Amino acid sequence: MFKLRFLTAGESHGRGLVGIIEGIPANLEINPEDIDRELMRRQAGFGRGGRMKIEADRVEIIGGVRWGLTMGSPLALFIRNRDWENWRRGMSPAREERGSAPPVTRPRPGHADLPGVLKYGQRDIRNILERSSARETAMRVAVGAVARRLLEEFGIAVGGFVTAIGDVSMEIEPSQLMEEDLRSLSAAAEASELRCPEADTAARMREAVERAAEGGYSLGGTFLVYAVGVPVGLGSHIQWDRRLDARLAHAFLGIQAVKGVEIGGGFEMSRRPGAEVMDEIFPASTGRGFTRKTNHSGGIEGGISNGMPVVVRAAMKPIPTQRRPLRSVDIETGGTVEAAYERSDVCAVPAATVIGEAMTALVLADAFLEKFGGDSVEETRRNYEGFLKSL
Amino acid sequence: MFKLRFLTAGESHGRGLVGIIEGIPANLEINPEDIDRELMRRQAGFGRGGRMKIEADRVEIIGGVRWGLTMGSPLALFIRNRDWENWRRGMSPAREERGSAPPVTRPRPGHADLPGVLKYGQRDIRNILERSSARETAMRVAVGAVARRLLEEFGIAVGGFVTAIGDVSMEIEPSQLMEEDLRSLSAAAEASELRCPEADTAARMREAVERAAEGGYSLGGTFLVYAVGVPVGLGSHIQWDRRLDARLAHAFLGIQAVKGVEIGGGFEMSRRPGAEVMDEIFPASTGRGFTRKTNHSGGIEGGISNGMPVVVRAAMKPIPTQRRPLRSVDIETGGTVEAAYERSDVCAVPAATVIGEAMTALVLADAFLEKFGGDSVEETRRNYEGFLKSL
Amino acid sequence: MFKLRFLTAGESHGRGLVGIIEGIPANLEINPEDIDRELMRRQAGFGRGGRMKIEADRVEIIGGVRWGLTMGSPLALFIRNRDWENWRRGMSPAREERGSAPPVTRPRPGHADLPGVLKYGQRDIRNILERSSARETAMRVAVGAVARRLLEEFGIAVGGFVTAIGDVSMEIEPSQLMEEDLRSLSAAAEASELRCPEADTAARMREAVERAAEGGYSLGGTFLVYAVGVPVGLGSHIQWDRRLDARLAHAFLGIQAVKGVEIGGGFEMSRRPGAEVMDEIFPASTGRGFTRKTNHSGGIEGGISNGMPVVVRAAMKPIPTQRRPLRSVDIETGGTVEAAYERSDVCAVPAATVIGEAMTALVLADAFLEKFGGDSVEETRRNYEGFLKSL
Amino acid sequence: MFKLRFLTAGESHGRGLVGIIEGIPANLEINPEDIDRELMRRQAGFGRGGRMKIEADRVEIIGGVRWGLTMGSPLALFIRNRDWENWRRGMSPAREERGSAPPVTRPRPGHADLPGVLKYGQRDIRNILERSSARETAMRVAVGAVARRLLEEFGIAVGGFVTAIGDVSMEIEPSQLMEEDLRSLSAAAEASELRCPEADTAARMREAVERAAEGGYSLGGTFLVYAVGVPVGLGSHIQWDRRLDARLAHAFLGIQAVKGVEIGGGFEMSRRPGAEVMDEIFPASTGRGFTRKTNHSGGIEGGISNGMPVVVRAAMKPIPTQRRPLRSVDIETGGTVEAAYERSDVCAVPAATVIGEAMTALVLADAFLEKFGGDSVEETRRNYEGFLKSL
Repeated sequence: MFKLRFLTAGESHGRGLVGIIEGIPANLEINPEDIDRELMRRQAGFGRGGRMKIEADRVEIIGGVRWGLTMGSPLALFIRNRDWENWRRGMSPAREERGSAPPVTRPRPGHADLPGVLKYGQRDIRNILERSSARETAMRVAVGAVARRLLEEFGIAVGGFVTAIGDVSMEIEPSQLMEEDLRSLSAAAEASELRCPEADTAARMREAVERAAEGGYSLGGTFLVYAVGVPVGLGSHIQWDRRLDARLAHAFLGIQAVKGVEIGGGFEMSRRPGAEVMDEIFPASTGRGFTRKTNHSGGIEGGISNGMPVVVRAAMKPIPTQRRPLRSVDIETGGTVEAAYERSDVCAVPAATVIGEAMTALVLADAFLEKFGGDSVEETRRNYEGFLKSL
Repeated sequence: MFKLRFLTAGESHGRGLVGIIEGIPANLEINPEDIDRELMRRQAGFGRGGRMKIEADRVEIIGGVRWGLTMGSPLALFIRNRDWENWRRGMSPAREERGSAPPVTRPRPGHADLPGVLKYGQRDIRNILERSSARETAMRVAVGAVARRLLEEFGIAVGGFVTAIGDVSMEIEPSQLMEEDLRSLSAAAEASELRCPEADTAARMREAVERAAEGGYSLGGTFLVYAVGVPVGLGSHIQWDRRLDARLAHAFLGIQAVKGVEIGGGFEMSRRPGAEVMDEIFPASTGRGFTRKTNHSGGIEGGISNGMPVVVRAAMKPIPTQRRPLRSVDIETGGTVEAAYERSDVCAVPAATVIGEAMTALVLADAFLEKFGGDSVEETRRNYEGFLKSL
Repeated sequence: MFKLRFLTAGESHGRGLVGIIEGIPANLEINPEDIDRELMRRQAGFGRGGRMKIEADRVEIIGGVRWGLTMGSPLALFIRNRDWENWRRGMSPAREERGSAPPVTRPRPGHADLPGVLKYGQRDIRNILERSSARETAMRVAVGAVARRLLEEFGIAVGGFVTAIGDVSMEIEPSQLMEEDLRSLSAAAEASELRCPEADTAARMREAVERAAEGGYSLGGTFLVYAVGVPVGLGSHIQWDRRLDARLAHAFLGIQAVKGVEIGGGFEMSRRPGAEVMDEIFPASTGRGFTRKTNHSGGIEGGISNGMPVVVRAAMKPIPTQRRPLRSVDIETGGTVEAAYERSDVCAVPAATVIGEAMTALVLADAFLEKFGGDSVEETRRNYEGFLKSL
Repeated sequence: MFKLRFLTAGESHGRGLVGIIEGIPANLEINPEDIDRELMRRQAGFGRGGRMKIEADRVEIIGGVRWGLTMGSPLALFIRNRDWENWRRGMSPAREERGSAPPVTRPRPGHADLPGVLKYGQRDIRNILERSSARETAMRVAVGAVARRLLEEFGIAVGGFVTAIGDVSMEIEPSQLMEEDLRSLSAAAEASELRCPEADTAARMREAVERAAEGGYSLGGTFLVYAVGVPVGLGSHIQWDRRLDARLAHAFLGIQAVKGVEIGGGFEMSRRPGAEVMDEIFPASTGRGFTRKTNHSGGIEGGISNGMPVVVRAAMKPIPTQRRPLRSVDIETGGTVEAAYERSDVCAVPAATVIGEAMTALVLADAFLEKFGGDSVEETRRNYEGFLKSL
């Protein structure tokens, strides 16, 4: 992040999650419901375990907002863990409770469990899994909701949908999807418990998840996140780490269980001849300016947004925690065991989509503010409109 | 980057490329030939344009190294552009030469050309393309060679090979590749002008490139980069941006024309049931410790290296510059034109592999020093060996 | 900060203050009382306004600590504002409360009030003063207490005392103060309500503060902060921003109302001939190593700690808020007015000393971890002891 | 730095100094003479050793500038060491030259020599002193000249002068100095070989330096740096490290041998009652806006520039290297020795003033671009003027 700074903290079964984000201009209208809506979107979705009922996340704004408006000071957000009562002793910060819960010693393959205990010199895997758990992403979604609010002020909308669960996938050709296509796919997805815009594909996804639940295994999938209304000029070619696509990739691979990401045509572009995957440039239909009829580049050329929709796709592996356990080794005894099992989702791809949207909003807000950011929304708007007029 | 800082500068046809890297411990043996070897690897490869003959890059070490050893101070590297004589006026820093070369006004689709001029308020695309060009990666390779030297001291080796060019691809199953497999594939690739370890696939790749050259179009492809000897414990789950996979994705998508990246099983993992893609944990065959028989995770679990080979695959789109030009719009006149053409490679996937290796070396060196880094190689070694003993 | 990251948030009369600190190794023993002790030290001291009674700060550890030990994950701290009930509407994040308190429109000279509203486009100075207020430093002290705990593990102690209030000052010659001197001065100061180690000077300071309170004006002063047990080798000469003295200066001038800082002999050194202010080097009395008989350099040579006590002195201006008000201009009406007055301290130099200690602890912990930091206290200790043995 | 990134590299007797600065907007006019002028100012001044004749620094712009204008890409600067021929073997990067010069083993008190070799595990002090030497500041001055050019575009001018050398000092009361006073003092200083605006004080300074040169000792002093034309609103109160005064202090204590810094009234403010040191607020004489009749705050309130001149004063200790040597200990033999002597200046306060100006320019450019920075000078100007109009 070049203009925003944010940190999150908090354990999965601790008192709650905390987030601080600095760099949001003053006078941005922000209300808890703007954030709660996103938290709810993250929690919704078929295939999620019983844990969801416990959560029912609500944000509390502790700092940075007064009377519904930001003040320029850092925002502090808090999400209470509703389950905390049951973990009060086991996750207490107090020394007196030491030993009040047995250690977790059977690492789950695919998780941070084993590398985490070795890295941090721990003998209880709980000290790792409490932070590596996807529970933490609730705070990213909350912080991302603030970024999303900022982008909305400037006509930038972020959305997404699930494109595959396991081997059930919908056919899409991202290079052909224009703003309205993306918006309508996203709207359709919003009504789907699998967050998939195609009803029949969603039905087959549901079956696949049911089968997996019965079989005691988990499923991954792929999802697409987009942003429309993004102006030309975010990100930069001048240094590798400033490229917008690089920053998005950083953010997406920073989501638990995401193992792949592609921008626009992505991997498919690598298979086709050059002439077929470039987005030719045409004069804008009205006034000055330029337009494209295709979007293989996913809205980013040379690390800079080009005014077309930003399109990112990501691959999520199946969640490592599964009812049908995997072989592992007890870190205390060294003996071969079955990996620990904590009640878990069967498929978290719909949730990951919402997290991907949040991270996209954060990356774009950062790049937007890097170019246009003043200290208030009004100043930012003035800067932005001055740039648009200059084009 | 958390422990290393580095910046590069310099234009494609300017006097040369400059790089500064800070954070390398003192007493690391480093010689120009360590860097020149990597520069040569980047320049080799079938399918590259005539430009390569001009280059013949050689590094000059300007600071930070004395008598073949680092001093702890930042390293400054310089790579002269051999072509500079021809561009002395057109790329001169001197005001007096203003106008000595005609502006480039026909943006190439797929390049930074158009978004770059709009972002930076330019009327001559040259002021963008000179920095967005892949020429700049020569300095990343040089800086990466320093990182590679550091990793070597600690038994970490980075390699890679081309896995596909256009629609010609070799079959590999990364989850099954152990250290020796990766090393021998990489060694085989080193002898191939396509940097592909399978001779017959390489032959077919060569044909594809020849066909493309004749047809006046470009080709992309995919490549694999790995690191072996990586200890458990690099990267962290505690904050999204510290995850090792996120940092690698940042680095790979920071390479020109790379549009996708995956870690280990990547996209394929998203299609398969959970039980099939987890790397079960077994006791190490000798002594204490743990081992795996598969590597779907690509050596990274929960954002932390797990001791298995780190495996990254990337997709590169075809180079936008093609002899058979694309439709574009003149930024001066607004009229429909053919995009500009500068002599260019037909296929740069072998070169991108070397750049991917360099970026991998930089990310791993950063994460390694974050955990073990002292101010000298000796101190770093002591820290590292102490950790290994403690496991 | 190079190894630690921390952010604080929260308004003076909002619900509370929030802090997140990342980078503290796992297995550090930390208990709320370690933090509360420092919060109490900040609140104590003669000359503070009635507000102190309201505060009685207590930290709540929300994340990062389990059973009295850090886990490697970021720590989240919360300090409730006890006064919140009275400000529930006036400082509410809820839009519905908009307008429930009259705006502050008369900027106080010397405060962020006027530049703040102009910068952030505000019409109510409260939106600035709530964050610029020194109340915010309570969280810095809390976060600093964590850093202090870390340093203690490695034998590094941070202390401080008030050296002047207004024109009442004690005579000290920092270059002559060795570890035991500093420790005993600090211990004496701990018993003083003015945090001044000399009883008679403290008595005169008290009189000066009483006179100021009667007269309706405020007083500043100077204070000294030191750290003992600091090993050689923290900070670096290789880049300006890595110098330990530069980092300390950054931290001290980051404290409200601090307008000057000096290391060791500071300004006095600039007046004396070179030969008189260098700390000559002698062989250590026992074993290998080196020692000094003076400490003009304040423990830092060439931006690197040299093993002598680190000594920093700072100048705090009188608090701008005074009962006897200053001339100002109403930002709404443009008319000449008296500046706003909020109940305030007469003299905050004792509190600033504690804040200076906290910031010193943070800077030193950052530099210590930059050199020796592993992911656990045990790993950090191993690295540290290995270095000491190597000297 | 929040918006600019810059790194410097290079050794005192190596091939030269290298600097990269990133974040300068495109279309800034910059010519080598803009930089060379500052390099010359740094080299001028009475009391400097013979080394200066060797230097005669000239910058070479390697990247980022074309035809006298920046392109948005990072600038790369190079300053050749004229003395390099004499050190070609002793400072060679080539392993073959190892041992071609005897090691330096007698650390100079007050320098990085001893802590540096211990930190970095060196046996030859040259490996430290080559980078810790003030020679490195030539590149900071060069990079600062670029920042200065940027500020000039927006009517911000940075200047400075020497206020004391040893115990010879001029009387100034910074709180009373308005823009024209500062400008005329600086202009007078420019004509003085001591960089002191008062001719008779300068004459006494000259005598003091001559006496010191004869006596074989060195002298420090104090200097003042200011910036005028600084708009309200640079820096921020919202987080400690964003405060403009903190950032300036970081930069000033990052200069070799600077041991103290104060903003505006500084230490003197700590001695006086509150009412005397606040800058009351008055309506601007014409139009809307505000003004002050005094400037105790040195142009910064609450960490934010307030539109008055920014005034910083710094204390420089005497240079540690002196002809009359100090006692030290040989790091090889452990025996008591006289410290090494390299030909050196007697008094570097005039040079430090120029370096202080350069660092001030960098900090202000960073804060200016943080608030107003677009990707081109034109965009930046539009943002800036829009803000000024909105006040």
